[in-house]
Amino acid sequence: MERRQFFRTGVAAGLLGASLPDSLEAITRPRRGRGTTATPTKLSSNENPLGLSPAAEKAIIEGLVDANRYPGDTRRKVIAALAEHHHVGGENIVTGGGSTEILRVAVHAMGLPNGRLVAAEPTFEDAPGYSAPVGIPIDKVPLRPDASHDVPRMRDVASRSDGPVVVFICNPNNPTGTLTSCAEVDAWITEATDNIFFILDEAYFDFVEDSSYWSGLKWINDNPNVLVSRTFSKVYGMAGLRLGYGIAHPTTVRKLIGVATRNNCNHLAGVAGLASLADRTFYRKSVDVNRQSRHILYEALRHLEIEHLPSHTNFVMHRIRGSLADYNGRMLEHGFRVGRPFPPMTDHSRISMGLPTDMERLADTLHTFRNKGWI
Amino acid sequence: MERRQFFRTGVAAGLLGASLPDSLEAITRPRRGRGTTATPTKLSSNENPLGLSPAAEKAIIEGLVDANRYPGDTRRKVIAALAEHHHVGGENIVTGGGSTEILRVAVHAMGLPNGRLVAAEPTFEDAPGYSAPVGIPIDKVPLRPDASHDVPRMRDVASRSDGPVVVFICNPNNPTGTLTSCAEVDAWITEATDNIFFILDEAYFDFVEDSSYWSGLKWINDNPNVLVSRTFSKVYGMAGLRLGYGIAHPTTVRKLIGVATRNNCNHLAGVAGLASLADRTFYRKSVDVNRQSRHILYEALRHLEIEHLPSHTNFVMHRIRGSLADYNGRMLEHGFRVGRPFPPMTDHSRISMGLPTDMERLADTLHTFRNKGWI
Repeated sequence: MERRQFFRTGVAAGLLGASLPDSLEAITRPRRGRGTTATPTKLSSNENPLGLSPAAEKAIIEGLVDANRYPGDTRRKVIAALAEHHHVGGENIVTGGGSTEILRVAVHAMGLPNGRLVAAEPTFEDAPGYSAPVGIPIDKVPLRPDASHDVPRMRDVASRSDGPVVVFICNPNNPTGTLTSCAEVDAWITEATDNIFFILDEAYFDFVEDSSYWSGLKWINDNPNVLVSRTFSKVYGMAGLRLGYGIAHPTTVRKLIGVATRNNCNHLAGVAGLASLADRTFYRKSVDVNRQSRHILYEALRHLEIEHLPSHTNFVMHRIRGSLADYNGRMLEHGFRVGRPFPPMTDHSRISMGLPTDMERLADTLHTFRNKGWI
Repeated sequence: MERRQFFRTGVAAGLLGASLPDSLEAITRPRRGRGTTATPTKLSSNENPLGLSPAAEKAIIEGLVDANRYPGDTRRKVIAALAEHHHVGGENIVTGGGSTEILRVAVHAMGLPNGRLVAAEPTFEDAPGYSAPVGIPIDKVPLRPDASHDVPRMRDVASRSDGPVVVFICNPNNPTGTLTSCAEVDAWITEATDNIFFILDEAYFDFVEDSSYWSGLKWINDNPNVLVSRTFSKVYGMAGLRLGYGIAHPTTVRKLIGVATRNNCNHLAGVAGLASLADRTFYRKSVDVNRQSRHILYEALRHLEIEHLPSHTNFVMHRIRGSLADYNGRMLEHGFRVGRPFPPMTDHSRISMGLPTDMERLADTLHTFRNKGWI
């Protein structure tokens, strides 16, 4: 059999997932983390426990034959598909090596020279992480008691500068999983002066089911100072492949592309992204499985009366007793790798959702911890 | 059959290339470009016509199961393997989404603020391409008549600035394929003031067979102002996967990492890179096939007395008659996509090496062109 034919129509497509029964994929899919101390179940990085969409795996295998070619054509297809998906133009889209690259190019293109970053604390580390090395000062504004962004205080801090101000709003917020009022953000965008640039990080958009939440996409036609960033790492399970994108006004997109890494949509991520966008069954399954897993964890936390934040994402932050290092070490001994410290919230642990079976084991472990007085 | 087992030991590994006979791989490997006007053979982007190493394809298929996980562990393994390969420490290595990211981070980390870029003309476009959007002025120094970098004039230009100067030396040079005297570059590095930072782009290192050429790696232990960039896109055939790296002094590496995109070694590129580094058979075949193909093209050019530059790479620049647009259009009509314009050398065409059979067809086409008076 010729290799291309094998890739296209042959044994591979069937055996490699495209026609596997659903239960096999979801339940018996082989995974690295077996839930032992040596190979713990990874609940630490907000990844998708389902793995890739079977359609994405198939697309990658078919795409191997072109992996020696630069990915310009693939990127053009990804941009066209994203434009159609979001009902925008291709000139509104910038690809990135994960949405982290979108944050990087936004911070560098809009914050240099002489700009500042205004961000919540705690929030996703990457926007601040790209600011410090290039000398962009960071104003950290603590979350409010309900773990939403303190928009009034962020506005106040931003208003003190006449120079460029990059405002990073992660909504839902990582690592807390909480929402910030979109109406409150919208009011700020409406009234903001031109020196303020908004990064609206919507990495967890697909998991939100709260009707008071909406995307910032509505701003991008008329407001060059608003960028929405999205990722294939979460609901599409592609964290290892590195594909994210930004949606913004064309003049903003051109500026961002100027500091983006060239050819930043790798070919296999691109073909996997195209296949994933088209696989709505996998998308719905990702959302459903996440909801099931979160429900199991919630039930355990409620039963044990462990304080926790309301999550609109694929992770939940809950209060611990004692030191986080002790807690994480004990979790590892019980076969789970859980989230790193997120100062200043070091009295909380962030648990990413695994499969429902993983969360049932985790619930048992939390009961064990309670029996031992560890939580 | 469980999916992991299939990936690991089953049908896939054999069918997907790991045990294909060598002749099948090299000769009948399916490729997109069939050599027609509609699907031309691509000889335009200095890619490797062999495709991926079979070991890399196998590693990618085995790696699918982890593609939903962030690639931190994979990157650590890649850095360790590269350190061993180059007899340096892990702290000397920075990964990039292709070596183009290495050029970007070097330009941004070393050229901002208030720096300049000194580069040859023509040379690889990406270092200048990353400078202009962030306001770094570019001093372009024409190549010498032998198409080597004009090192004395570059030194002179660089010496006029007290601020940061990033010097980009692509050796062998793209798009000319020519060498610049390493002794001459070494003399400059030895005598350079601390404000001068050297990017030594060695993307085509593996194809050079000239004993007067050597790597700049010897500088990196003692000279924080020297960076060597390398790529998996050429000899390893991984252009679509985006994996490159820089080798430098640890203090330099730390600065570069500060402006690099996080998680920039995607998982599938990483596992493919690890497998490719270990597959010396494929490496030797890449070099051999390139030599054979270049020989076939040289013979045709000599026979037709078409002026061309001596190539130390996987591409050859030759003189054309008339306009490059006409020439490229006619090549496309004959089933070949050849290189874009490289101003100011628009009286030359850059031909990337395909398989030997591709080059035989190209030689025939050049004879046809001669018969028609087109070249």
